[in-house]
Amino acid sequence: MKTVTKTNKNIYNRACRVLTGGVSRNTIYRKPHPFYVATAKGSYITDIEGVERIDFANNMASLIHGHSHPAINEAVIEQIQRGTAFTMGTEAEVRFAELMIKRSDSFERMRFVNSGTEAVMTMIKTSRVYTKKPKIAKAEGAYHGTYDYAEASQTSNPSNWGDINKPNVNQVVEGTPQGALDDVVVYPFNDIERTLNILDQHADEIACVLIDPVPHRVGLFPATNEFVNAVYNWTRKNNALMVFDEVVTYRVNYGGKQEIFSVKPDLTAMGKMIGGGFPIGALAGKKEIMEMLNPRGRILRHPHSGTFSANPISTTAGRVAMELFDREAVLKLNALTSIAIKQIEESIRIADVPVSVTGAGSMFRLHLQATKPTSYREAYHSKEKKALITELLDYLFLEENIIMINTGACMFATTLRQKEVDRLSDALLNGFKLFKPKLDRLDH
Amino acid sequence: MKTVTKTNKNIYNRACRVLTGGVSRNTIYRKPHPFYVATAKGSYITDIEGVERIDFANNMASLIHGHSHPAINEAVIEQIQRGTAFTMGTEAEVRFAELMIKRSDSFERMRFVNSGTEAVMTMIKTSRVYTKKPKIAKAEGAYHGTYDYAEASQTSNPSNWGDINKPNVNQVVEGTPQGALDDVVVYPFNDIERTLNILDQHADEIACVLIDPVPHRVGLFPATNEFVNAVYNWTRKNNALMVFDEVVTYRVNYGGKQEIFSVKPDLTAMGKMIGGGFPIGALAGKKEIMEMLNPRGRILRHPHSGTFSANPISTTAGRVAMELFDREAVLKLNALTSIAIKQIEESIRIADVPVSVTGAGSMFRLHLQATKPTSYREAYHSKEKKALITELLDYLFLEENIIMINTGACMFATTLRQKEVDRLSDALLNGFKLFKPKLDRLDH
Repeated sequence: MKTVTKTNKNIYNRACRVLTGGVSRNTIYRKPHPFYVATAKGSYITDIEGVERIDFANNMASLIHGHSHPAINEAVIEQIQRGTAFTMGTEAEVRFAELMIKRSDSFERMRFVNSGTEAVMTMIKTSRVYTKKPKIAKAEGAYHGTYDYAEASQTSNPSNWGDINKPNVNQVVEGTPQGALDDVVVYPFNDIERTLNILDQHADEIACVLIDPVPHRVGLFPATNEFVNAVYNWTRKNNALMVFDEVVTYRVNYGGKQEIFSVKPDLTAMGKMIGGGFPIGALAGKKEIMEMLNPRGRILRHPHSGTFSANPISTTAGRVAMELFDREAVLKLNALTSIAIKQIEESIRIADVPVSVTGAGSMFRLHLQATKPTSYREAYHSKEKKALITELLDYLFLEENIIMINTGACMFATTLRQKEVDRLSDALLNGFKLFKPKLDRLDH
Repeated sequence: MKTVTKTNKNIYNRACRVLTGGVSRNTIYRKPHPFYVATAKGSYITDIEGVERIDFANNMASLIHGHSHPAINEAVIEQIQRGTAFTMGTEAEVRFAELMIKRSDSFERMRFVNSGTEAVMTMIKTSRVYTKKPKIAKAEGAYHGTYDYAEASQTSNPSNWGDINKPNVNQVVEGTPQGALDDVVVYPFNDIERTLNILDQHADEIACVLIDPVPHRVGLFPATNEFVNAVYNWTRKNNALMVFDEVVTYRVNYGGKQEIFSVKPDLTAMGKMIGGGFPIGALAGKKEIMEMLNPRGRILRHPHSGTFSANPISTTAGRVAMELFDREAVLKLNALTSIAIKQIEESIRIADVPVSVTGAGSMFRLHLQATKPTSYREAYHSKEKKALITELLDYLFLEENIIMINTGACMFATTLRQKEVDRLSDALLNGFKLFKPKLDRLDH
């Protein structure tokens, strides 16, 4: 192990005296301590000890153009000199909304918020107003931010997930009110028959069926067109909405993952990359449903503001990032990601390890099992699997200078080239060889 | 009326085709259309028609140093060139946490999030984990962001607020699940006897009593030391937490409004000005309670991350803003605000109108009634009052080039000087004279 971690350790020691657990978000925590960034450019991050690493995590998928993109920086710095937030509008929010509305057929009106969590929460609340019903349905294992209803059963495990025909609704945070859990229905992703059965049991109460079309924590495999159609048809018959969480997946096609389905969601929550590296969330969808938020109505059905919502920094950075992420850029990035997956699959074959890769567009995830999982329960990582993926990722981070997401996922950025992809597949080959005995043992 | 609104109107027309109601947050909406900012510096905003106005709203209290402060801009621009968000830590979050922990005695550990809404939500969830109880108590009329539990009864009105001895728990957004409302207890702010009576009825179920110590929407008058002590003592006896929402009020003293109370909150939510003009929220409090969020524990009791939480832009801007807002700056700003209130009270006296002013520190609010309100129900604005305050604020905005918050409140910034205060009291004098007949009629 490289031992240039003294300064990182010192900062962490300071952090432990002021931040709970020494971190402000659990995702950056790693044993024995997190690492701290000095500077980052494109796909390279240099930590405060001067160690340079290639970044395949891109702040949990939020940096589609890597770090410090010159065009985004230029536009943001120009805006900063004219102010960052006002109790008035800016043309920046209008320009950005115009751009986004053009990208996806299902977007007729939109609203900006500050995070994916806020976007999903606003989407759920809007669904309740429109349908006058209290419940939501969501996929077991799917992450949708930290709103109690949206996070239920995200971390279900074999000891509490219950019958697959009727998965248990489990709290993620201790002390979640039972009243909140009672308003959540959990379905098994991509399992049409069971899902429709479960939905039918709550048909009169479901405001929306929430779908992440490529749910990272479920296993990062796409919803099938059949599944989306089945849910869509069910919602049409039962006065419910079909709503998408595309906070992560909007990157998959020019108009989001939804572009390739033959039916479209009523509402879509977004976040991450559409902020161009700055905090953002957004809700877009059908005009008549978004109308619930209209302050000009006779009654205010869904009052909605937010001090920093639609601030000109996030909307300017986001607009520039999305302008740069045009159809050609999306296709090019997806093509490079396909090459990466092929090379990694070749590394898996050479090392002869029981590892598989799932993904869509510019995202993929490693699974420590020979067969690609097709459900949350198949993809579920036991304690041993979790420990081994952490060991592998630590090896990559410390020895190969490769940064991946802590689930074993990569979210590509347009600043990556073949050179970095080669480093990734080579590093993984080394890792697979090194951990082959453990990987083999785990698969039995 | 000045009629230089063609460009503003054109942008709004474009906005209406892409944003619901033509706005992304209701606070910026005004009839017949919102106004759009071209550039802002210090306490002056120039709109896209070239009209310059003095800003006393400061993006809903979030800009303690006005617009485009050179020191904040310099630090942020420097950080932007080193990256805006990473799946790793930065020293920026540690430095900022160190600074904040020193400011308030009740802060032992903290965590950053992206908005006041997220901060309050995280605070409520942490309270539930720690106490193992589901309910929260909150003041009638108090605004705490958009989490269902936190927003209940924020907009209660005479038709639905019920008996003051047991105020009704009312939804703010239509379709709020009854299950959520059932876990909220509403108390009348500053009313010790009634509040304790109400709390007693739910003693076994209350996780936390949430207090905004100068609740803007209740009427912007401070909690009494007696009230805070009574609630504190009740929480000590009943295994509950006393938690403060200081998203707005942290500005009141160097260590927050809490500094002057003889007892301190267990947890405090912050936001607005501590982001230095960029999106932020924060939760701080006792070590043993914040420990619920620790990822290093044997079990993860409250998993907590957030893609943009503690990003180095918001934490850098926030740190610089708070360094500049030292004890001397706080006192100076509060002194100027006191002068402003005195001058406005003189304007009220000269115009002989039934208007009063409440406030604390660098904030105040006008009430269209001769006697200062001491409760939400006294301060409640009827439809007629709301219409008249809007008329007055429109006059100030369009004719006097003065920007206030739509409740009739001002949130001062350190960039204001006596010159701007004189303009404010003069403009208000003109407004009071103009609207005197209507104001007099309203008061009867």
